[in-house]
Amino acid sequence: MNIGLITAAAERLEGRAVRTPILSSPFLDEIAGRQVLVKPECLQKTGSFKYRGAFSAVSALDPTEREKGVIAFSSGNHAQGIALAARQHGCPAEIIMPSDAPQLKIANTRALGAEVVLYDRANESREALGDTLSRQRGLTLIKPYDEPQVIAGQGTIGLELAAQAQAAGVTNADVLVCCGGGGLTSGIALALEASAPELRARPCEPEGFDDTARSLASGQIQRNTQMAGGLCDAIVTPQPGELTFPIMHRLCGPGLVVTETEALQAMAVAFQRLKLVVEPGGAVALAAALFHPKKIEGPAVIAIISGGNVDNAVFTRALVHSS
Amino acid sequence: MNIGLITAAAERLEGRAVRTPILSSPFLDEIAGRQVLVKPECLQKTGSFKYRGAFSAVSALDPTEREKGVIAFSSGNHAQGIALAARQHGCPAEIIMPSDAPQLKIANTRALGAEVVLYDRANESREALGDTLSRQRGLTLIKPYDEPQVIAGQGTIGLELAAQAQAAGVTNADVLVCCGGGGLTSGIALALEASAPELRARPCEPEGFDDTARSLASGQIQRNTQMAGGLCDAIVTPQPGELTFPIMHRLCGPGLVVTETEALQAMAVAFQRLKLVVEPGGAVALAAALFHPKKIEGPAVIAIISGGNVDNAVFTRALVHSS
Repeated sequence: MNIGLITAAAERLEGRAVRTPILSSPFLDEIAGRQVLVKPECLQKTGSFKYRGAFSAVSALDPTEREKGVIAFSSGNHAQGIALAARQHGCPAEIIMPSDAPQLKIANTRALGAEVVLYDRANESREALGDTLSRQRGLTLIKPYDEPQVIAGQGTIGLELAAQAQAAGVTNADVLVCCGGGGLTSGIALALEASAPELRARPCEPEGFDDTARSLASGQIQRNTQMAGGLCDAIVTPQPGELTFPIMHRLCGPGLVVTETEALQAMAVAFQRLKLVVEPGGAVALAAALFHPKKIEGPAVIAIISGGNVDNAVFTRALVHSS
Repeated sequence: MNIGLITAAAERLEGRAVRTPILSSPFLDEIAGRQVLVKPECLQKTGSFKYRGAFSAVSALDPTEREKGVIAFSSGNHAQGIALAARQHGCPAEIIMPSDAPQLKIANTRALGAEVVLYDRANESREALGDTLSRQRGLTLIKPYDEPQVIAGQGTIGLELAAQAQAAGVTNADVLVCCGGGGLTSGIALALEASAPELRARPCEPEGFDDTARSLASGQIQRNTQMAGGLCDAIVTPQPGELTFPIMHRLCGPGLVVTETEALQAMAVAFQRLKLVVEPGGAVALAAALFHPKKIEGPAVIAIISGGNVDNAVFTRALVHSS
């Protein structure tokens, strides 16, 4: 992995991905006790940052291979990203999704033209299933985070952020990132290392799924004991990736952990003050920025909102927390 | 009014207003039967486009006059825009708001440092009240739409849109605009006349408050029979403005009218597909784009979402319409 992969991905994504703006509100600053900048990737195509990595990977394939089709496993956001990127390249996509993924994500993935295969997250290995299907049908497997072109695509957020933060006068700050397998966090960390080294990426996770925080603290990859469940389905992964962890270990500050209630409260703040629809897993970085001020250094903090694909019921549950 | 006022306002707003992105979704295109581009001004500071006109007007004042303070009357969005713009200039702000405005808008206006005076929308004239207060205290009245610097600020949306639509390959389309007094519509129409004449601004209103559509059809300013009520509080005004109507009459295509149910349905689509929180009055242009395709010409349509300051109860009511 090097910055060249990220700048090349940014060129391929030009005119495809939304250049998400930087949002702010005096009400957020007041809650957090410091200036808060938010980069809302829930506004990205398909409702999450995953479209960037998906499009980056599909567009980087050899055309002959791409024509045969792609396959991906995903709790939903990578799935939708791959489905749209494949459709934009005119190639077939097969997606392996957990049977407990939000109905909305499954339905959207199908509506975007992909074939969906469901599996049992607690008892089956999606990796093994993906390997088998990809060999049988000659499809190229695009992993959700442990894949250089996917990390490069997510890293384009870091390039945009470096320029946007500078324009906003913020040159030294923690950059809080919602973290599952670490593709988004490691991509942003690499981009910031090259373009804004005083902005420090820090992974944020929900309680009970803090594998990355524990891995960074111990210096060794740690696994979660639970493999499924919780509201933050978008960022529930067994452990940090083999590619992503060394990058995060080298570049990231300590991980932050928030409760599910704090994630719901952050969703309510995003609704009321930023006019954004955020999913629980997409709100953990904002929750850390707002509700864990003592774990953060400096007069400003930047939070990446990673996605907004949330069912009505969960969103309504979050609204109860608005003031 | 000329384009120079708008480009000057754009310079003053540089680095202050959010340059809102252009959003799209294949799901919206499918509903509308054509390509749909959305410019979400709900993401603007204070949750609506009104911040642009407010900042433009406050920043254009003579500093000696500005120091004495400003006064505004508003159903809520202009109020919040003026409150923040005044605070950013370090001058006092007094806001006259209808007593039936959403609690959220009243509370936010106060939280932004303005003094709020409530009046009865059905029986009192806010114009008369504003004139009296402004004379008594030496405050400069900043009208919500019939004020050149306000129209110029709203027009900066048109300048951004002209560049963004061209980048998206859309050079000939109807631009649907949520319309109350016509400040947003006339500002955008003036900016498009100068920078993208093949993009045609068209006002959109809720049923029962279609004064602008009827005024454009008859060529004369028409009034609404109802003066209050309805979900679309943000764009309920008695009639088009004396300054804004001649501009709209010269430049705009026919007005479009949607039902409240269509506005709620558009809010649900914006929630589900764009991850945006939109208020009913801010959703009427998107509703027209999605649900009145036969009234629109060409292969693409652009909808301006004007605001997102909505109470939980109304938002939850809209969510019932999501699929």
